[in-house]
Amino acid sequence: MKKQIWIISIAVLYSLLIAAHAKAQKTPAVSEATQACLSCHGFFHPGIRSDWERSHHGRVTPAEALGKDKLQRRVSSEKIPEPFLKTVVGCAECHTLNHEKHSDTYDHNGYKVHLIVTPSDCSTCHPVEADQYGKNLMAYAYGNLNNNALYRDLMNSVNGVQTFENMTTTLRLPDAETNQDSCFYCHGTEIKVLGQRTRETPFGKMEFPILSGWPNQGTGRINPDGSKGACTACHTRHQFSIEVARKPYTCSECHKGPDVPGSAVYEVSKHGNIYSSLGKGWNFEAVPWTIGKDLTAPTCATCHVSLLFNEESGDVIAERTHQMSDRLAWRIMGLIYAHAQPKSPDTTLIKNKAGLPLPTELTGEPVSEYLIDSGEQERRNTAMQKICRSCHTEEWVKGQFARIENTMKTTNEMTLTATKILLAAWDKGVAKGPAQKDSPFNEAIEKKWVEQWLFYGNSTRFASAMVGADYGVFANGRWYLSKNIREMLDWLEFKLQKTPGKTEEQKK
Amino acid sequence: MKKQIWIISIAVLYSLLIAAHAKAQKTPAVSEATQACLSCHGFFHPGIRSDWERSHHGRVTPAEALGKDKLQRRVSSEKIPEPFLKTVVGCAECHTLNHEKHSDTYDHNGYKVHLIVTPSDCSTCHPVEADQYGKNLMAYAYGNLNNNALYRDLMNSVNGVQTFENMTTTLRLPDAETNQDSCFYCHGTEIKVLGQRTRETPFGKMEFPILSGWPNQGTGRINPDGSKGACTACHTRHQFSIEVARKPYTCSECHKGPDVPGSAVYEVSKHGNIYSSLGKGWNFEAVPWTIGKDLTAPTCATCHVSLLFNEESGDVIAERTHQMSDRLAWRIMGLIYAHAQPKSPDTTLIKNKAGLPLPTELTGEPVSEYLIDSGEQERRNTAMQKICRSCHTEEWVKGQFARIENTMKTTNEMTLTATKILLAAWDKGVAKGPAQKDSPFNEAIEKKWVEQWLFYGNSTRFASAMVGADYGVFANGRWYLSKNIREMLDWLEFKLQKTPGKTEEQKK
Amino acid sequence: MKKQIWIISIAVLYSLLIAAHAKAQKTPAVSEATQACLSCHGFFHPGIRSDWERSHHGRVTPAEALGKDKLQRRVSSEKIPEPFLKTVVGCAECHTLNHEKHSDTYDHNGYKVHLIVTPSDCSTCHPVEADQYGKNLMAYAYGNLNNNALYRDLMNSVNGVQTFENMTTTLRLPDAETNQDSCFYCHGTEIKVLGQRTRETPFGKMEFPILSGWPNQGTGRINPDGSKGACTACHTRHQFSIEVARKPYTCSECHKGPDVPGSAVYEVSKHGNIYSSLGKGWNFEAVPWTIGKDLTAPTCATCHVSLLFNEESGDVIAERTHQMSDRLAWRIMGLIYAHAQPKSPDTTLIKNKAGLPLPTELTGEPVSEYLIDSGEQERRNTAMQKICRSCHTEEWVKGQFARIENTMKTTNEMTLTATKILLAAWDKGVAKGPAQKDSPFNEAIEKKWVEQWLFYGNSTRFASAMVGADYGVFANGRWYLSKNIREMLDWLEFKLQKTPGKTEEQKK
Repeated sequence: MKKQIWIISIAVLYSLLIAAHAKAQKTPAVSEATQACLSCHGFFHPGIRSDWERSHHGRVTPAEALGKDKLQRRVSSEKIPEPFLKTVVGCAECHTLNHEKHSDTYDHNGYKVHLIVTPSDCSTCHPVEADQYGKNLMAYAYGNLNNNALYRDLMNSVNGVQTFENMTTTLRLPDAETNQDSCFYCHGTEIKVLGQRTRETPFGKMEFPILSGWPNQGTGRINPDGSKGACTACHTRHQFSIEVARKPYTCSECHKGPDVPGSAVYEVSKHGNIYSSLGKGWNFEAVPWTIGKDLTAPTCATCHVSLLFNEESGDVIAERTHQMSDRLAWRIMGLIYAHAQPKSPDTTLIKNKAGLPLPTELTGEPVSEYLIDSGEQERRNTAMQKICRSCHTEEWVKGQFARIENTMKTTNEMTLTATKILLAAWDKGVAKGPAQKDSPFNEAIEKKWVEQWLFYGNSTRFASAMVGADYGVFANGRWYLSKNIREMLDWLEFKLQKTPGKTEEQKK
Repeated sequence: MKKQIWIISIAVLYSLLIAAHAKAQKTPAVSEATQACLSCHGFFHPGIRSDWERSHHGRVTPAEALGKDKLQRRVSSEKIPEPFLKTVVGCAECHTLNHEKHSDTYDHNGYKVHLIVTPSDCSTCHPVEADQYGKNLMAYAYGNLNNNALYRDLMNSVNGVQTFENMTTTLRLPDAETNQDSCFYCHGTEIKVLGQRTRETPFGKMEFPILSGWPNQGTGRINPDGSKGACTACHTRHQFSIEVARKPYTCSECHKGPDVPGSAVYEVSKHGNIYSSLGKGWNFEAVPWTIGKDLTAPTCATCHVSLLFNEESGDVIAERTHQMSDRLAWRIMGLIYAHAQPKSPDTTLIKNKAGLPLPTELTGEPVSEYLIDSGEQERRNTAMQKICRSCHTEEWVKGQFARIENTMKTTNEMTLTATKILLAAWDKGVAKGPAQKDSPFNEAIEKKWVEQWLFYGNSTRFASAMVGADYGVFANGRWYLSKNIREMLDWLEFKLQKTPGKTEEQKK
Repeated sequence: MKKQIWIISIAVLYSLLIAAHAKAQKTPAVSEATQACLSCHGFFHPGIRSDWERSHHGRVTPAEALGKDKLQRRVSSEKIPEPFLKTVVGCAECHTLNHEKHSDTYDHNGYKVHLIVTPSDCSTCHPVEADQYGKNLMAYAYGNLNNNALYRDLMNSVNGVQTFENMTTTLRLPDAETNQDSCFYCHGTEIKVLGQRTRETPFGKMEFPILSGWPNQGTGRINPDGSKGACTACHTRHQFSIEVARKPYTCSECHKGPDVPGSAVYEVSKHGNIYSSLGKGWNFEAVPWTIGKDLTAPTCATCHVSLLFNEESGDVIAERTHQMSDRLAWRIMGLIYAHAQPKSPDTTLIKNKAGLPLPTELTGEPVSEYLIDSGEQERRNTAMQKICRSCHTEEWVKGQFARIENTMKTTNEMTLTATKILLAAWDKGVAKGPAQKDSPFNEAIEKKWVEQWLFYGNSTRFASAMVGADYGVFANGRWYLSKNIREMLDWLEFKLQKTPGKTEEQKK
């Protein structure tokens, strides 16, 4: 009890010092509510406080932000509500915002506070970005995985626990905690309020909500206000630095493994080399981002997100977009075959002829009604190529895109070959597939088939698209595409040998 | 001969210049003995000289170091011997120190010099760190591998040379040189003086000791003065920069491969992203290390080693420790199952019920008498979580630790499944294990079993502990844990098919 | 049409502004032809323009470059032609140079312009470097792969498309586009002029050459002027920064995958750690590069290319070389066994006793007549070790080199074992090799054999040579060397079992 009084005294004193300090500096103008937050949390969480102090949110008021020229402006709302205009964007501004819509809202020292700040909350000042992000596949990353029976089966086969008895294994479906620690770390969790718990704090007993799926900053998080996504996946808390979002390390959090090798490929590309060698002298804070002046080679954000400017001509090279597929004609990863981008970010809507929730048939034909058409593909390619041409000639760009298209074709063919071997295994009865009411992901040959497209096809296409050399050859590239087929064949031969009738049938 | 005189003349002249230069600058005060070293070695090894000049050792005298406030102090001795107080810590101070205890001491231009500076030598000024490090598993890394019959067998199976004659292979045990180039690079070599050799130098013939196991800076090096370890494993010669030790690249020298993926996981974690994006503006030299002011996200050292300070509250968040397990409740790598940290850093003392030198049974049960108890685990978790709470709420930390514990449970289960398949293979006689006086590491199915825990179980746990996304899924994570089991089963099926009697027996 | 006039007007105005700006600053002196280029291309390609403005080429005239002391000089020609002396090296200086020798030359706004600038062009100012590079294996990277029947077969097996019908696969040879996107990205493409095409531009219709194999900056590119190589592989367009060339990211573009793990190994080496931790404070622009002053640990370029200086002694530690093997006694990658460097960079000249274009027999014996002798090896080791000794003692260097030699021996032995298993497979008729007129690279066991040397042997040797720890053990090192042999044996056993006659024969 004595200790608590002591802590409270220091906290109050500290709060006064903050106020004095703020006054002395004239800025930033911190709201009373945020000062109340800082008086304790700044004390207990120096990392959060310091991060926020370095942020634009902690230094600039929305009124100031609105005062900038359109091209320099970092807020997209034209009418930020009056109460927010004159103080910087602090703890309370975000964590008490729309509290009535948040099932995670709780009473905390006289304030209605919620833990999870959502794209809906951020849209108070950034509505265009929130809207664009809502059309982004990444905003649907949770549902597109969890609510697609086929992908969910893949997830179960990966995350489930196999046990071994009587010379055979049994799969126990994964618990929620495991999925959250695995696929949903990037795809996002579903955050629900399970109840309240009372906890002893330095200020006595306090109540806090109990959340499922927390912590999580996955791109398709299902939030307690019903919204989708987490801006903080890329705009890392609590500095929300555009520098962090623009650097490739942010993307590499979820895009570096063998199934999603974008960042790994970028690292060994010429673009990645230039960034790693010279990026220290670039300006990662400038809005708009001026090619040649602020940066001399692209990072992930340059090509896929940022507002790019040509100072020589005064042209906008690319408008800012938070729908990451907006400059992408093709989808080259995560699925069996490369195919045109889907029309809707909600891919659970898709059904192919076989009734499977896939954008292509099992043998590769696109399910066109759900995919963007060639006109839209051309529009997206044109948008992307305009960026390329900031530093490359027309001849260069044309040659580069021809290679990517060729590589999509050949990797799709190599996947089709693997698929045919798998179909033969199912047909000959040496493996069991959907027709036998069995998962297509649980047997060894099925797992090899998955690697053909999920690892090697992807990697080869990324290497082609981003010019990542060995990722198209020996680093999960064509070497493995070709080796894997031979190993699938050997597996088939070994299994057929065990079932002699089948083998003879085969020899006919 | 003429050339030698010329060189000596230049060296003497150079030595005078150094002295003059030192005088002109007033500092640093270099001892006469060190000036003698520099007069030749500064000339021949500009890299060593320059590194040292940039070091604290080369710029600060122990007397000055002792004069700092306790919290800022970089020396832990209260009574550094008088002769060392007034000059900076130069070549001679370390390389002639305790020469009587060093079997590698030799006569060199009138000085008793030894090549290998050891933790014992460093403890003259840094006794607390040397003492802590002596309780560190890493200080025992040589013996824990070399003197554990089971691990030594694993090492032999990895490093040995297999030859092929008459359709079978034979293992030739690895030579000492190979082990030094392989496992012992990180674990440390045993350095022995094998004799002396005479070598022609620019100053005529000179004698030098012949050392086995040299060069080496492994963490568990057995030194010629009988001490264990190499401070230079992390405090890289000859700048001994705390910046280097605190940056993740140092740890990555030994902790990046599939068996020890800590650094690889860190790189793609949110923490790693923030470090890579913003670390350029942090202060890696400050002692103590102030959260929020000097750094806004942790590196390896932050959580595992450093003295951390909260400037807002004036609290020490974490005391400095060089016993790296001091904030770790669990050991999640390098062994078959995740388990509580061992009590003693000398793990050769451990024996399980089966008489094997393992901290768990082959089927996973912990050998509790050799492991820390739940009280000590809680103490260590509390120490670690206090660091987490500098930037995270209680709810966040609680959720994060619950996931790690769940992941230890499920990865242990997946390892148990692999172990049961291996036991079946041994039992059915299609592979030979310890019961058949054969290595458990030399056959293909045994190697798959090793990968289940040494690669995939580890990687999944690290991804969970450090939030490294795909390292828990497709980058050596759960995908491989589940695939490997199916491949072990196929291997078993294939071998049983070859020995029909066994197969029938199995079908009963 | 109206739009075109508008654009041309702006371009002309812009051109005048450039001239005015150049005058105001006095420097740089840009030639009239280059100003014509910039007037449009600076406008449309701000990235190219800005890169070039930051380059030495854009800021220094050849006359100024020639005025420097020999050691500081960045041009090696003593007699740069008069017309180039007084203006900086701009677009026109390079892209119209030797236009009569270039089959890619075309008429462009009154200038004879070629797209591909070649080592021959660069040799106008940098003849020594061009000459050295011409002796570099890397300059022959295209032909050494494409014109070696054995390697070409490997390339076909990797890049070709396999189709599956009637339970068997058929290989379709790779198309040119695929090879360009794969192996030739690093090795270089052959660039040919296929014709001309007319394209609509902002200035009306214009003609441009159609090139095969474009874009490409591979090290062994076959250029339209008949020369070999691309300086821009490392001296990245259009900044041509020596900083980029000296940083390891440049090498990592082509040397990071499992077949060529140099950069990956460097990253986790002590050298790489020091570079990553402290390199931010080094001077990557200085010529010569002074050890201890400009850098305190080597990057790739330090040991393999750069002019290194010892300021203390005034000695040149290493002369600049663009023949990258000039300090390398051994060739440890890309071939079946480690062996002495070849005498000629054109390795298609080599024939072993079996008539194969290999520097060793299939069983490892070197084909000595085509390889450098031990005297030349010693010369190269001496050159390299002089660099090592800038920071390491004689004892250290001696020990380090002894380990590398031992590792070459043991990895060669482990490859020989794999080769013997493969030979047994061919001999027993369960796989088909050259004697059966079949590719040695297309069957599963053959692919395992390739991985033994191309991945695991290489990786282990690189780890030894550059002290990269786990790359010699569990990260594609000895663990895989030993595991792969067991898997090759199992494969053999499985296949022999299918052909019982053979199996009995084996048991005799």
